[in-house]
Amino acid sequence: MSVHRLTLGDVLAEHRRSRPQGTAVVDGDVRLTYPELDERVNRLAAALAADGVGPGDRVLWLGQNSFRVLELLLAAGRLGAICCPANWRQTADELAHILDDLTPKIVVWEESEAVEKARGQVSPDARWVGSGDEYEAYLAAGTGEPPVEVPDDAPVLALYTAAFDGRPNAALLSHAALIAHNMSLLHMRQMEDGFAFLACGPMFHVGTMMFTLATFQIGGKVVVTPAYEPAEVCRLIEAERCTQAFLFGPMIDGLVEANRDRAHDLSSLRFVSHSPEWDEMITVDDSPWCRSGMGGYGQTEVAGMLTFLGLGMGGAGHAGRPSPLVHVRILDADGAEVPAGEVGEICARGHSLFSGYWNRPELNEAKTRGGWHHTGDLGRREPDGTITFIGPRLRMIKSANENIYPAEVERALKSHPAVADAAVIGVPDDRFGQSPKAIVVLQDGRDATAEEIIEHVRGEIASYKKPRGVAFVDQIPKRGYTPDYDALDAAHGGGAYPGM
Amino acid sequence: MSVHRLTLGDVLAEHRRSRPQGTAVVDGDVRLTYPELDERVNRLAAALAADGVGPGDRVLWLGQNSFRVLELLLAAGRLGAICCPANWRQTADELAHILDDLTPKIVVWEESEAVEKARGQVSPDARWVGSGDEYEAYLAAGTGEPPVEVPDDAPVLALYTAAFDGRPNAALLSHAALIAHNMSLLHMRQMEDGFAFLACGPMFHVGTMMFTLATFQIGGKVVVTPAYEPAEVCRLIEAERCTQAFLFGPMIDGLVEANRDRAHDLSSLRFVSHSPEWDEMITVDDSPWCRSGMGGYGQTEVAGMLTFLGLGMGGAGHAGRPSPLVHVRILDADGAEVPAGEVGEICARGHSLFSGYWNRPELNEAKTRGGWHHTGDLGRREPDGTITFIGPRLRMIKSANENIYPAEVERALKSHPAVADAAVIGVPDDRFGQSPKAIVVLQDGRDATAEEIIEHVRGEIASYKKPRGVAFVDQIPKRGYTPDYDALDAAHGGGAYPGM
Repeated sequence: MSVHRLTLGDVLAEHRRSRPQGTAVVDGDVRLTYPELDERVNRLAAALAADGVGPGDRVLWLGQNSFRVLELLLAAGRLGAICCPANWRQTADELAHILDDLTPKIVVWEESEAVEKARGQVSPDARWVGSGDEYEAYLAAGTGEPPVEVPDDAPVLALYTAAFDGRPNAALLSHAALIAHNMSLLHMRQMEDGFAFLACGPMFHVGTMMFTLATFQIGGKVVVTPAYEPAEVCRLIEAERCTQAFLFGPMIDGLVEANRDRAHDLSSLRFVSHSPEWDEMITVDDSPWCRSGMGGYGQTEVAGMLTFLGLGMGGAGHAGRPSPLVHVRILDADGAEVPAGEVGEICARGHSLFSGYWNRPELNEAKTRGGWHHTGDLGRREPDGTITFIGPRLRMIKSANENIYPAEVERALKSHPAVADAAVIGVPDDRFGQSPKAIVVLQDGRDATAEEIIEHVRGEIASYKKPRGVAFVDQIPKRGYTPDYDALDAAHGGGAYPGM
Repeated sequence: MSVHRLTLGDVLAEHRRSRPQGTAVVDGDVRLTYPELDERVNRLAAALAADGVGPGDRVLWLGQNSFRVLELLLAAGRLGAICCPANWRQTADELAHILDDLTPKIVVWEESEAVEKARGQVSPDARWVGSGDEYEAYLAAGTGEPPVEVPDDAPVLALYTAAFDGRPNAALLSHAALIAHNMSLLHMRQMEDGFAFLACGPMFHVGTMMFTLATFQIGGKVVVTPAYEPAEVCRLIEAERCTQAFLFGPMIDGLVEANRDRAHDLSSLRFVSHSPEWDEMITVDDSPWCRSGMGGYGQTEVAGMLTFLGLGMGGAGHAGRPSPLVHVRILDADGAEVPAGEVGEICARGHSLFSGYWNRPELNEAKTRGGWHHTGDLGRREPDGTITFIGPRLRMIKSANENIYPAEVERALKSHPAVADAAVIGVPDDRFGQSPKAIVVLQDGRDATAEEIIEHVRGEIASYKKPRGVAFVDQIPKRGYTPDYDALDAAHGGGAYPGM
């Protein structure tokens, strides 16, 4: 085995020696030191191996957040196998698709009606293990050291993402890619010895997983809670002296509200400035990651972040610059690089890139044509070299031969003082092929006409990009943190996209 | 070519796009932006290729520090070739050994008598290019894009080090190893966008080279000066707003002295606390690297640092813990791991490790036995998991079956108030096989007898480790930053070492 190899299992084996008293995970009543975690991971790997799990095999986690997700990932890694933590709050059909697609050898599952129904729809090849006591008994039965000669370019984590054809695909991330991404986060977030991360976002999502794994890489403490619950999050931050948590805007507001009486000391948290009340409760952090408001561009296929605003603060592009372990090209449809200032597809190479999607040979070939990973997102290199993320390539609107990117129009819409939220779709247009249409949520107690809003946009960006119509709604449907454009198209007559 | 590949050339190609106005290098009157550097490196690579330099070939730099060392390294990297910046202030014999050993295709050289003499001693196969105008003409003649399909595990940098058999060996470092080490420094030193490093130590030494390359990795500015000259260093720090420089204790004292009149504003320098005067001149830096006093353990064969005190501050071991990209085992002579608290050889694996020594197949096999790189240094895992560096394995003293490590005795000697410097050798002893002997330099104006000093050591460490004799000298000969034990053995009767 090469002297250069470094797998997640190697990292764990080092932590066992380097941090014999260090707490690795906390989850409810469970507290494990690194030696204890290593011990349990070896047992679990031995149990999996006894069930025939070997290189390239998949194990599936269907349940809430748990320290066992990390254990299952590390145990799979010790065997060269792949662990997939999936969103268990999907419909039975969606879960059945995953089971069919991934064909896991082992499914660790938490009881739920949908999961049970999905289980009935698929062939019974997998062994199903309950995520509680049954898991503990399964692990306890494992004996013998598992083989550890795993190459570090072997995929170890699968995360479902990116529904190109309406069905999600599992992005495969290798030991090497995850470790590379960990390094970029350690650097940008200035994660030091003693870091403690509260995983209060879903662990099947790269946003939570990337900080879970970077914390593991530096030998820190991962505190797991089943889901975001403001009062419990406040309690855990105080009790475990958490340095960071998975938090975004509305989640932060929830904590401020829950801790209005200052019952909990949140000062251990070193986080992004948000509001005067929040900033007083926590320690505002000075790392490039926090200083830049956690800005950048990323996707599951690059293990999290591809670019960091922290590497280009004050620059023209709000996505900043690439992490030191990747490089980026903005390419046209023929694979040629476009000049700075022009829009093209964001393409990338480097250490933290994924190893393709599970079971999608044709898609994988298309996505890596010319030796570059094609993100499917449009971006622009600004004259100062920083990068602007425009929006998904497939959502480009073509109007009278001009390209219009919804994200740009949305930003202009949101700068109107009466607009609380906005999304832009393309609707078929006899004369122009397509024209942009705005879907707008007004601020409480504020008013504005369609004409006023269109006029405002015309003052912000090129006239041909202004919406030809505005639909006012109470709420914009979301998929994660972005508008659900499919739902908006269906509800507001969208269609005729050139890229689709 | 794999979508995961990342060479130094790829990093440069990204910087050209990401930092079109960014200054890459400053050296005297020369200032190059990243696009200019990329341009010149391509020309130089084309010129080298025209001279038949290809994968695995060596190019040698014999001269003072220069931005051209970085150019030559990057150009060699673009071709899969290896660049060796060597110490040109060696004797003609030493230089001839390097020429014989490395068999470079190209030698870029600065005029010196020793180099000229060495040139006469070896076969004339290499092409010799003067490091000044001749280099510029050579570079200018290069045309055409060089091939760039270089795998990132190809060696690109060779640094002579570690004279096991009295002759130095060239440690080969790959693109991947250098980039991995860069990441560990970026993390520990919190090197951000806008970092500027003053290379005022020798660029043929890993200590200067590692910060040069980490600065390059983050797209910062490398300021080169031929050699450490206090007044010029002060001037450059101010003029180029340098964030860091290659500085150690006596070098810092030199700057304090040179800047006693506060003629230069050194506040851009973010560095280690040293003395009240120094701390007032600069900005004391809070990164783990600076906070820990730049502590750790390293060697050229691991591209610089293997462990960082910044990952184990407050721990028992003064070398701290391994970088996140390596792992360490303390092994006995049979390759078995020794328990915490016991001394063994420091062995390592991971991303930043070297690719062996040039032209030393047998030594390479011995150094990587069992799949672990054997550093040749002794260390100990403390009960808290941190690591203590003890000293070179070959310098162990064996007295009445007890192992005595010079470094430990030296530390005890130096804690005596009258001792300015100290080294410990083993001298043959009829009764015990060997016994330790102290070579001591007294502080100016202080006095102490051999008996007082031995008594002091006995109070600090186990009695059997105390020196049986003390030789007082004016100065301890050094090889780099460590005592020249060979010279001390020769001068003070050392010998009978068990490891040699």
